[in-house]
Amino acid sequence: MKGETQSCLLTGQGQKTSRDMSDLKKITGRPSAEEEQRLNMSESFRKILDLSSGDSQNAGIKPITFVRQVIAGCTYPRMLQGDALPPDARLRAQKLLSHFDGGSIGSYTESCGVMYVRNTIAKSISLRDGGVLCSPEQIFITADTQRALMRMLQVLCQSEGVSAVMVPDPAPHTLARLLERMGVVPVTYQLREQSGWSVERAELNRAIQASRGRCFPRTIYISNPGNPTGHVQSRESIQDVIRFAANEELFLLVDEVYQDTVFADGSEFVSYKRVLAEMGEPYSGRVQLASMHSLSNGIMGECGFRTGYMEMVNVDEAVMLYIEILLTGDLCPPVIGQIALDVMADPPCPGEPSYSLYTREVASRLMTLKCNVSRAVEFINDLPGFSCQSVQSGIFIYPHLTLPHTALTHSQSVGLLYSRRLLEDQGVYVGFSEDHTHSGSCCHLRLCVLMPSDELEEALRRLQSFHFQFLKEYCDTGETFSEPQQSVK
Amino acid sequence: MKGETQSCLLTGQGQKTSRDMSDLKKITGRPSAEEEQRLNMSESFRKILDLSSGDSQNAGIKPITFVRQVIAGCTYPRMLQGDALPPDARLRAQKLLSHFDGGSIGSYTESCGVMYVRNTIAKSISLRDGGVLCSPEQIFITADTQRALMRMLQVLCQSEGVSAVMVPDPAPHTLARLLERMGVVPVTYQLREQSGWSVERAELNRAIQASRGRCFPRTIYISNPGNPTGHVQSRESIQDVIRFAANEELFLLVDEVYQDTVFADGSEFVSYKRVLAEMGEPYSGRVQLASMHSLSNGIMGECGFRTGYMEMVNVDEAVMLYIEILLTGDLCPPVIGQIALDVMADPPCPGEPSYSLYTREVASRLMTLKCNVSRAVEFINDLPGFSCQSVQSGIFIYPHLTLPHTALTHSQSVGLLYSRRLLEDQGVYVGFSEDHTHSGSCCHLRLCVLMPSDELEEALRRLQSFHFQFLKEYCDTGETFSEPQQSVK
Repeated sequence: MKGETQSCLLTGQGQKTSRDMSDLKKITGRPSAEEEQRLNMSESFRKILDLSSGDSQNAGIKPITFVRQVIAGCTYPRMLQGDALPPDARLRAQKLLSHFDGGSIGSYTESCGVMYVRNTIAKSISLRDGGVLCSPEQIFITADTQRALMRMLQVLCQSEGVSAVMVPDPAPHTLARLLERMGVVPVTYQLREQSGWSVERAELNRAIQASRGRCFPRTIYISNPGNPTGHVQSRESIQDVIRFAANEELFLLVDEVYQDTVFADGSEFVSYKRVLAEMGEPYSGRVQLASMHSLSNGIMGECGFRTGYMEMVNVDEAVMLYIEILLTGDLCPPVIGQIALDVMADPPCPGEPSYSLYTREVASRLMTLKCNVSRAVEFINDLPGFSCQSVQSGIFIYPHLTLPHTALTHSQSVGLLYSRRLLEDQGVYVGFSEDHTHSGSCCHLRLCVLMPSDELEEALRRLQSFHFQFLKEYCDTGETFSEPQQSVK
Repeated sequence: MKGETQSCLLTGQGQKTSRDMSDLKKITGRPSAEEEQRLNMSESFRKILDLSSGDSQNAGIKPITFVRQVIAGCTYPRMLQGDALPPDARLRAQKLLSHFDGGSIGSYTESCGVMYVRNTIAKSISLRDGGVLCSPEQIFITADTQRALMRMLQVLCQSEGVSAVMVPDPAPHTLARLLERMGVVPVTYQLREQSGWSVERAELNRAIQASRGRCFPRTIYISNPGNPTGHVQSRESIQDVIRFAANEELFLLVDEVYQDTVFADGSEFVSYKRVLAEMGEPYSGRVQLASMHSLSNGIMGECGFRTGYMEMVNVDEAVMLYIEILLTGDLCPPVIGQIALDVMADPPCPGEPSYSLYTREVASRLMTLKCNVSRAVEFINDLPGFSCQSVQSGIFIYPHLTLPHTALTHSQSVGLLYSRRLLEDQGVYVGFSEDHTHSGSCCHLRLCVLMPSDELEEALRRLQSFHFQFLKEYCDTGETFSEPQQSVK
């Protein structure tokens, strides 16, 4: 099973339920192959469908051709002489090679990435933000977003007292473990599910007030477009968060890795950087901000390249230097990833040979996402016990599951039980979060839907079949759910 | 300047002399471009020659063709259909792709690397070690050796009291900073320059005795073949270290990244793992060991791919699991690097189409290294004040420089002054270490000599010219050195 596994889950090693299941394969890896084989040989299904992680190429989505062509040309420059690659891919590869030391992708680059690519990224940000200036010195290319986040937390959480960061709930599933590992206390602000997972100022105020005396948060982490919720913040909502950050003197740490995957009609990604710049003084020159983007999560979906970048705004020069020093620990980010970032930031233009294919591939990916999300949300909302907010962006849906209160004993975790059984019975692997605001019989599931539509239909079919079986088994308590009203296409 | 820079040095930011100069570019990056341009425009030389870092492709050494062909095929699989690549490269790429999730290098792999490649590595280790068993479960592929080392130190330095590791002096130039950053106390054992940088048991005993009361080392770090000294330990010397580790219950952390670059007649690399296994009980089943290897330093010289691996021997299952958990922080190592590791561990065989070219390329690299080392050691030994031990492996020479005692004021660091002036006057960038066992007028220089021979001649010419100018300027104290007896080819 790719990207993530559930071996601890399957081998019953008694993992804490607070540990997200989707990380368990990464933790143990080794027994999972056998487990997977065992599951794969089960009669009830042909192969495991992994909906827990955002690994689109594993799920069958093809890579963007142009980026692979440019990398192939840089890797094996003899290809630049023939016509195996389109002219613009050859030209791009030649240009990039001329900026790598020794003309080779086998050399180190600067710790923050090669200046040429940082410059491409800076230009693309400025273009995205309607001309708001961005300089390559503000761009730090990193080995991946996790690493970037880790470095930022190292820098930001060095103040006296208990290190703390304001974080949303729900949040990206890797965040809690990262904070725990770094000894950073999370100060949680709830996103409001009823209003489409909005960030609300009153809740931010409540959360920071509640932390007083216990810790002293100097940073607020924001995920926009939201992971795993799929909400997209409006300009007004962003302004509200910026004013809050300014009042409380918080550093804004903004995860914007899903900025290229907004697909809902009427939704638009606006960057924190742009909103901040357009708010003018006293905010624009004062509020400190770091925004993260990545090859893994965006339209590229190149998880295996392990590369992303951060843009720093209003950050003190001494802090910038300190971050650079921390980044030297990795010597330099992977060079192949830097090539892919150059293509992501500067795709083929109209009139260039690869423009048409590139544009079609990106549009097709967004259309797949849009259709799949719409189909999955509708389907799941029709299953008894489920409710799912609409989704504007990203690659996940995040439905809420409520089971009859008496269905489970208190010792059981709904999310753990449900996802374990779904995997064992039907070979569908999903992420989950327990719902701590209710009693023990609620949870959220996290399902990645970026996959070919026939795979999605198969996953939904198995989920439906499992769901009614599960209800029969665990919820036969007098409360009954209605029969299935829908059929799989 | 690629890979490393000296901007702080040039901009006079008052870096501590204890910080190795070769890391300074990685720290500041930004001003270095201008500095470099200024230096490049100097009339006295055409371009900067960077001998400080082990970045062979920057220095003009070409990559191994087969590895680039396999990566190009994996990256852009359409190439696997034509005949742009030799059949064995196509076959290898197809095989590898079939083991990546979704058949793509864009997917995540397990955190320790894809099992297929771990298996290839394990087989190659067993072959290298005359059949001593190695299982893929013992192999952890990591984002790079620095990261592997950091993770190991995290695991090994969690005991009560002050965390300490026995480390050699001299050591790889990045080690001191890594230990400092991780709060680990170095317990230094001196390598004996007079006897070819040997590791001596009496010195190990002295060092650990001297640490008593101050800290409690549980780990000994070994660099074999030695970086930057180029010595290769004999089987007897390794047995001696293993006995010492067993007696003192130390974990053996062995940096063996230069195992493929032993070129001296009569020298042979023998792994710690093999010696340990062949010593039998009570050692073979008890002494814990981690050995590191890398794409950057070995015969591949692919620094930009950022990938290496560790082999663990006799390590407790719980510790193995903990290391895996730490590695999940990176999600997975770069996939391109995993492909290159597969090729490094399993190169083309006799009879296969790429065998001849691959073998020629590797042999040519070793021959260049051998000739360059021989030439550079002889040349430098003829310069007054220099003495250089013979070198059996690796890519550096590490000559000792002694200047007349009265030449410099006590406030001056010989290494810093000499290397700074060498860079500014002649555009040759070298690493250095102060010699703390003597007064202030001794140091060692670290020069990478893996480069085309004409580049080396140019570097030696500039060094010679600078050296006599420097002696005139700083050492006109009655003590005179003889005139140059040699000429550059």
